[in-house]
Amino acid sequence: MDRKPRGDSPSRDVQDKAAKKSRRGFLKQGAALVTGAASAGLAQGADSTTAAQALAGHPWERVYGAGFTGYGQPSRFEQPVMRHIGKPYGDLAPGSGSALAPIEALEGIITPSGLHNDRSHSGTPDIDPKQHQLLLHGLVQRPLAFSMEALWRYPMTTRTHFLECSGNSARALAPQPAQVPAGAMHGNIACSEWTGVPLRVLLEEAGLMPQAKWILAEGADSAHMSRSIPVEKALDDAMLALYQNGERLRPEQGYPVRLLLPGYEGNMNVKWLRRLKATEEPTHTKDETSKYTDPLPDGRSLQFTFEMGVKSVITKPSSTMKLPRTGFYEISGIAWSGAGRIRRVEVSADGGVTWADAALTGEERPKALVRFRLPWEWTGKEAVLQSRATDEKGRVQPARKAWLAQFAPDVRYHNNSIVSWAVGTDGSVKNVYV
Amino acid sequence: MDRKPRGDSPSRDVQDKAAKKSRRGFLKQGAALVTGAASAGLAQGADSTTAAQALAGHPWERVYGAGFTGYGQPSRFEQPVMRHIGKPYGDLAPGSGSALAPIEALEGIITPSGLHNDRSHSGTPDIDPKQHQLLLHGLVQRPLAFSMEALWRYPMTTRTHFLECSGNSARALAPQPAQVPAGAMHGNIACSEWTGVPLRVLLEEAGLMPQAKWILAEGADSAHMSRSIPVEKALDDAMLALYQNGERLRPEQGYPVRLLLPGYEGNMNVKWLRRLKATEEPTHTKDETSKYTDPLPDGRSLQFTFEMGVKSVITKPSSTMKLPRTGFYEISGIAWSGAGRIRRVEVSADGGVTWADAALTGEERPKALVRFRLPWEWTGKEAVLQSRATDEKGRVQPARKAWLAQFAPDVRYHNNSIVSWAVGTDGSVKNVYV
Repeated sequence: MDRKPRGDSPSRDVQDKAAKKSRRGFLKQGAALVTGAASAGLAQGADSTTAAQALAGHPWERVYGAGFTGYGQPSRFEQPVMRHIGKPYGDLAPGSGSALAPIEALEGIITPSGLHNDRSHSGTPDIDPKQHQLLLHGLVQRPLAFSMEALWRYPMTTRTHFLECSGNSARALAPQPAQVPAGAMHGNIACSEWTGVPLRVLLEEAGLMPQAKWILAEGADSAHMSRSIPVEKALDDAMLALYQNGERLRPEQGYPVRLLLPGYEGNMNVKWLRRLKATEEPTHTKDETSKYTDPLPDGRSLQFTFEMGVKSVITKPSSTMKLPRTGFYEISGIAWSGAGRIRRVEVSADGGVTWADAALTGEERPKALVRFRLPWEWTGKEAVLQSRATDEKGRVQPARKAWLAQFAPDVRYHNNSIVSWAVGTDGSVKNVYV
Repeated sequence: MDRKPRGDSPSRDVQDKAAKKSRRGFLKQGAALVTGAASAGLAQGADSTTAAQALAGHPWERVYGAGFTGYGQPSRFEQPVMRHIGKPYGDLAPGSGSALAPIEALEGIITPSGLHNDRSHSGTPDIDPKQHQLLLHGLVQRPLAFSMEALWRYPMTTRTHFLECSGNSARALAPQPAQVPAGAMHGNIACSEWTGVPLRVLLEEAGLMPQAKWILAEGADSAHMSRSIPVEKALDDAMLALYQNGERLRPEQGYPVRLLLPGYEGNMNVKWLRRLKATEEPTHTKDETSKYTDPLPDGRSLQFTFEMGVKSVITKPSSTMKLPRTGFYEISGIAWSGAGRIRRVEVSADGGVTWADAALTGEERPKALVRFRLPWEWTGKEAVLQSRATDEKGRVQPARKAWLAQFAPDVRYHNNSIVSWAVGTDGSVKNVYV
């Protein structure tokens, strides 16, 4: 879809209906939220001439359409909707970097698998599932090796969870606010329905020893991406994911099997999983010492900061879009928390002076994206749009300055601070630091 | 994935865990369900030699993987997982027929958009969303025409719903049971997360007149697929769907806009929607007189049988699969009802003599697929696997004979009767009529 909303603003009727659907109705407070201005109808009134034109039909209504396909693809008119490809560490290795979800063009909660964010350390391996094995060893009474066919027959579970790279929103730490689409900054996040075998089932079959406190997880990519997982998490909601949104995992998401640690930073959800080793202590792999630590102002660094924070971002409207005229818009965005369910998302149109509760969809699911919506009338004045999420543990998404104050200047992970979009009098939407 | 489960059966440990996860544990009653036989371990014990082999690594662990892509695709090893393409009415028109979802290879609840079932009457039109318009006219005070850009700014809603062609499972009405994969018979069903504008909002904006009792919905395909919709449904949970599983609708599902009537037979969810006309009476279009009626034994036919019945089908294991050896299997399948939520799915392994409750996932969502699961031990004897769904209205999926007795022999729609898979002593799974 085109990233710029166009067309007229909707009629008063629509606004009234929309207001009823929101928890508090329109945002009516704040400089940019005066509702006095009359708005023109969004839908054009169709007289009989217009109706006749609409009924005349387009060329595609007069020819047979395309035949059936075994596996469908998006419309050719949607080709501009692609992942934003970035290389956060430069050219360290082919395939090292990330491809971010174009959240500014998406709606709902599920991320289409073709647009799922992809953080890789040495590219996507081309794994033959008939040859791939998963080894479970270390402090277990009975080391086990699983073929993919063997895993297929274990009891499975289906759950919807987000996956966020801990480096998501690092680009929003640049000295000057980047003027790029929302996904290019905040799109290292996606949400899928995952199906797989609870890790607990396999650990119990192997006979996990009491002294085992950590599980080393290792990928079959050439980087052998490796992380140490607390055994409590492995025995809680961890899953060996085999299916993503109904079909087998996509290659970029770890085909044929990945570790899924709901709510934990993305890289710990080791893709192309080849090995799990029960250990007494964390292994201190290259990936958890040279990277994925958080520097503090006093020179020390936090290690093993697993859980992703409570966070939200407005996707519609968002950076680089342009509002074509004054009138009604629906503000829409995504919220999530690594600690559990989202309880509340507030929206401000005046840079955080006043807030209104948005309506939520999907808030019954822990550690999954939630879609929030709030009707808003743009009167043509400057506005600063923000969203602020609160999770079921009572954690509130921090303001940018408060978040920054916790870390050293070179911090790059776990930025869950509030995002601000400024709407100019010309309708342009810009990324700003507030 | 390979459609045939392979490998050994799992160990007793796994069975015990699985049993705890099921509501009633293993199916232990019935001729095919004797649990006396010992089962070998599914996971092979990995001694140090095996572990060393597993750690030696495969070729893909020694080279850089593929780089980033804008829009991802399934693994090349998953190419056999495709829609089953059929032409139920012969060569009436190019693109007339259906492509069924390979439910036997899928898991969870969401159907990947590329494998969504596709029933078309004249193929998939190649619609330019910048030119496409939706006309709303007839018994309204203010006829309206909507561009796709205009619709983008209306308040939206996100919900998960199934779509089933009313001709789904017609192939299971053949004189002899077809030996084809489950999806080739029962796969004219799919489930997506849909986002769009509630139809009620637009009807109220247009000013629906009190005498308007029906809404004619017409597609922009060259068949101009047309159905009459009761106004009560249009004002209830009907939606103009713009997004499917997070991204814009796929062309086969009605890009750029389709009507979504949750729980109603698939063809009424008019794709490529170009026109909605409010009328006093149903229009009696070609598509609701020559087709989509249900013949009764007395020679009359039922018309306007909108709501899809309560239904379920076991997908794992299913027709044409083969169980490689005795031991533990997880029985898994999908259930749904056009009347609302699924409350219960029972599974039988003895052709309906005894039943056990399966565990459900997704049962909180009305008019959506539910995934059911039940651990089962196959002892090597003959078994007949069945599932039976009950919805929140108390409707129970009928036995095949009871369902058939309601209609004339040439009935072809709304077959929601119980599906039976026979497991032979050699482990082969066959479609049978019970």
